[in-house]
Amino acid sequence: MLQAERLAVKPFLQAVRFDAAGLVAAVVQDAATHEVLMVAWMNAESLRRTLELGETVFWSRSRQEYWHKGATSGHVQRVVDLRVDCDGDALLIRVEPAGPACHTGAVSCFYRGLALDGPQSDASQGDASQGNVPPIQSDQPHQAADADTRR
Amino acid sequence: MLQAERLAVKPFLQAVRFDAAGLVAAVVQDAATHEVLMVAWMNAESLRRTLELGETVFWSRSRQEYWHKGATSGHVQRVVDLRVDCDGDALLIRVEPAGPACHTGAVSCFYRGLALDGPQSDASQGDASQGNVPPIQSDQPHQAADADTRR
Repeated sequence: MLQAERLAVKPFLQAVRFDAAGLVAAVVQDAATHEVLMVAWMNAESLRRTLELGETVFWSRSRQEYWHKGATSGHVQRVVDLRVDCDGDALLIRVEPAGPACHTGAVSCFYRGLALDGPQSDASQGDASQGNVPPIQSDQPHQAADADTRR
Repeated sequence: MLQAERLAVKPFLQAVRFDAAGLVAAVVQDAATHEVLMVAWMNAESLRRTLELGETVFWSRSRQEYWHKGATSGHVQRVVDLRVDCDGDALLIRVEPAGPACHTGAVSCFYRGLALDGPQSDASQGDASQGNVPPIQSDQPHQAADADTRR
């Protein structure tokens, strides 16, 4: 993991930009394996509780309540690093997880991938034994915005 | 990176749940270094273009236009793996980046971190030379929702 510019709590919190619903996206990454485990949401209070507790506390959009990850399952996520992105609308939380991140029991919530064994393959199920997959090929020209500044 | 269940294009796309604004969060990770590079947004069309091109194409919320990452800077992100999370509202895109992800020139947009050198440190600037940081300490009990099912 690259070195980060380190901010104190107050400037760090000031750098976070919550959206119109008061939320910021939080990417949770295993600090040891670097596996991306899950994406969840935080409001200002859940971020405050995360800092206070040293474990992830999210805001559940579906249940509309605070969600201390692992409170029932025991699979808490101990926070070892907290980052904010350049425009403040996403957090990266590196953790030591006490168990699987996903409610399905999977280590990561990202356990489903696209089978890229050919250009827009239509095989009903890909080969789960493959690690890296080849890039998607296309001979069609691409028309997209030619700007690469801010999102 | 853990193995994934591999889906063909159609079931994969059907697993993606766009929000009320037609967007899904996309976490971009360097496939080689495992660094989380950025979080951006995709709508159905930008996801389609990403698959077609084999490079990331986002939807810029601020500019309200498609954003082919690297179209001007040359710092395209070649897609080597595409994942969807358990509830379909986030994508994980593992890439081979041709240059820095951030418009600031930083490799990752997450170049700012919280200085965790003590309980809610108030130092104006942390030590950027430190790699891992100790966990946040708190002796205050935490009251959060005791559910750990879905977000």
